[in-house]
Amino acid sequence: MAKIMAVNAGSSSLKYQLIEMPSAYVLCSGIIERIGIDNSIFTIEINGEKHKDILDIENHEKAVNLVLEALTKYNVVSSLDEIDGVGHRTVHGGEKFASSVILDDDVIKTMEDLSDLAPLHNPANLIGYHAFKKALPNVGHVGVFDTAFHQTMTKDTYVYPIPYEYYTEFGVRKYGFHGTSHLYVSQRCIELLGNPQESKIITCHLGNGASLAAVKNGLSINTSMGLTPLAGIMMGTRSGDIDPAIITFLMDKTGKTAYEINDILNKKSGMLGISGISSDARDIENGYNEGNERAQLTIDIYVNRIIDTIGSYFVKLGGLDAIVFTAGLGENGIMFREKVVEKLEEALGVKLDATRNNVRGQEALISSDDSKVKVFLIPTNEELVIAQDAMKLLNL
Amino acid sequence: MAKIMAVNAGSSSLKYQLIEMPSAYVLCSGIIERIGIDNSIFTIEINGEKHKDILDIENHEKAVNLVLEALTKYNVVSSLDEIDGVGHRTVHGGEKFASSVILDDDVIKTMEDLSDLAPLHNPANLIGYHAFKKALPNVGHVGVFDTAFHQTMTKDTYVYPIPYEYYTEFGVRKYGFHGTSHLYVSQRCIELLGNPQESKIITCHLGNGASLAAVKNGLSINTSMGLTPLAGIMMGTRSGDIDPAIITFLMDKTGKTAYEINDILNKKSGMLGISGISSDARDIENGYNEGNERAQLTIDIYVNRIIDTIGSYFVKLGGLDAIVFTAGLGENGIMFREKVVEKLEEALGVKLDATRNNVRGQEALISSDDSKVKVFLIPTNEELVIAQDAMKLLNL
Repeated sequence: MAKIMAVNAGSSSLKYQLIEMPSAYVLCSGIIERIGIDNSIFTIEINGEKHKDILDIENHEKAVNLVLEALTKYNVVSSLDEIDGVGHRTVHGGEKFASSVILDDDVIKTMEDLSDLAPLHNPANLIGYHAFKKALPNVGHVGVFDTAFHQTMTKDTYVYPIPYEYYTEFGVRKYGFHGTSHLYVSQRCIELLGNPQESKIITCHLGNGASLAAVKNGLSINTSMGLTPLAGIMMGTRSGDIDPAIITFLMDKTGKTAYEINDILNKKSGMLGISGISSDARDIENGYNEGNERAQLTIDIYVNRIIDTIGSYFVKLGGLDAIVFTAGLGENGIMFREKVVEKLEEALGVKLDATRNNVRGQEALISSDDSKVKVFLIPTNEELVIAQDAMKLLNL
Repeated sequence: MAKIMAVNAGSSSLKYQLIEMPSAYVLCSGIIERIGIDNSIFTIEINGEKHKDILDIENHEKAVNLVLEALTKYNVVSSLDEIDGVGHRTVHGGEKFASSVILDDDVIKTMEDLSDLAPLHNPANLIGYHAFKKALPNVGHVGVFDTAFHQTMTKDTYVYPIPYEYYTEFGVRKYGFHGTSHLYVSQRCIELLGNPQESKIITCHLGNGASLAAVKNGLSINTSMGLTPLAGIMMGTRSGDIDPAIITFLMDKTGKTAYEINDILNKKSGMLGISGISSDARDIENGYNEGNERAQLTIDIYVNRIIDTIGSYFVKLGGLDAIVFTAGLGENGIMFREKVVEKLEEALGVKLDATRNNVRGQEALISSDDSKVKVFLIPTNEELVIAQDAMKLLNL
């Protein structure tokens, strides 16, 4: 038995779970928000009981110390020595890391070098690491990369049709993200299929960020995000793939810079951009139910982008055994799942069972018995993968 | 019987065919290149006999007059009065033109207004129109738009997931191109299928520019090009769709402007960019046969982008009756067709017949008898559509 702290550090936030392994029991979880901003929010949840504090937390080091103090204060552990290891969500492993890794000085240096590929994420992950390393210097720390699972894509899938030296010199290629989630739900799906030797699965991670992966025999062979998490399907605020010439066209029309347009594609597009209402799928669904035309258009376009990608992956996989829905909208969007599968039915023979699909946030087979392809709802659990990988690499 | 001049005017070129209708017999054809540059090249071909002149042709008006003089000089017609109408290839009809139209002052004004959507093409088309109109003022002139066939796409297909006002204010949406070609080969395909009531066809126009269309019951329901001809699959020198964030990433890395990167995506990418050899598929195929790794990678990526799109359209169409290959590479690329269909076989049950596929530039069924989807090679004939539309609209 071991206790692993699973950490996800953002630029002004820190999510954490202390997980008892191998039972995967979550001893506590929480998030600190607005780090370095006034009125920071500290939360910790233990056995369903939530504690919340508003206070000023200047930096991640302070945040980490507050978390660790809370563990003993609330009797989650009697001593910090009970923590056997820390697993960190690390976003960009570039081409260097095809799996999780023990974080040592060399690895940290490499992650720093990769920061230009993920300028918002890698530096924040490293700040989280340094803070926890300082507080818990005697246990092993492991990095679990968001890109690692997709490193099995072949070169003809990840190289872009642009001058080749942009790949060799600057690392411009498809990396893909959400790898830990795609890995977790695809493995769970393979178990639910009865551990067949061969399997063809499409995993749909539909959160605020969203991506699909084509998983053949347990390995990612394609995914919809690209060099950056802007690519692929449409998301809450991100456009996904569009005609790249739209950028200069809009520069001419609006007088904005390429960076401003890029920012709009990341933060003002997707569901928010089309609907003009919200980036939150629940608001869009409400608008849809009230007959708002742009909310309806938003849902139709969102569904189209998903089924386009599923069609591509169906050909790429050479068939299809199962589709998995996961993450916020994938787990809770009953109507969204229904609309996606409805549009797949004619070509792929996939069918939902309306009663089975009437479920949120829990593992379920939701396809009908006569569906040619099984459809599952599988709640993602990136923290569990982080804890498992830490256990494995630290020999716990 | 009528004689129609079919014209395709570019910024420094002018292609023409004089076609006898309804027999579709080509009385003569030719191209004038380097208009407005020194050493312009004038060619005319009559009954397989080619005439070529190198001379200075200052502008399109001169070019048109040379063409018309040549018609009597080479006895193609005994008098210019024999020409009954002129059909002009016109690139961008925006949302204004869902079919061909008689070119009058109002239409010309609208085309001028649409020029910002096709700054390289519409002004050149208009120059060609004005030159022919001046030389042949007493016959009707018809515009055949490259975008018209795709105007049957629904809103959820053509609206991009970006702020909605960019569509309403600036017309940013998917238009698609090569419409005349997709229309011609899909209609011919429907005939070859025996004119069924319902049909699901994917047309692959693979030239230097390249696009696919999903054609349901004769109507375009999706196509791969977008606001501009940069979008969609990879081409000779164009990237097609990529992560849009690559533009600002490359600006940072190279110090180039967004316009320079956009230019690279249009002119230095695609086959040329990956291979470093050429934008010409024949050179890439030679490189492939010589074992050049980047030529092999180029072909693999090119094929991937096509099969991705075919997979999407298979789902969108709700099944598939036929795939059509057309244009330069589609009509002549025996190996390319083979590689595309090979990768479709497992998922879609499509199979080529190697002997039938060993053909270039002529109409043929190239799938095997046990293929679940028929595959055709159908040479495109945009000039014929132009002539037909001119006949129809001018009541000839």
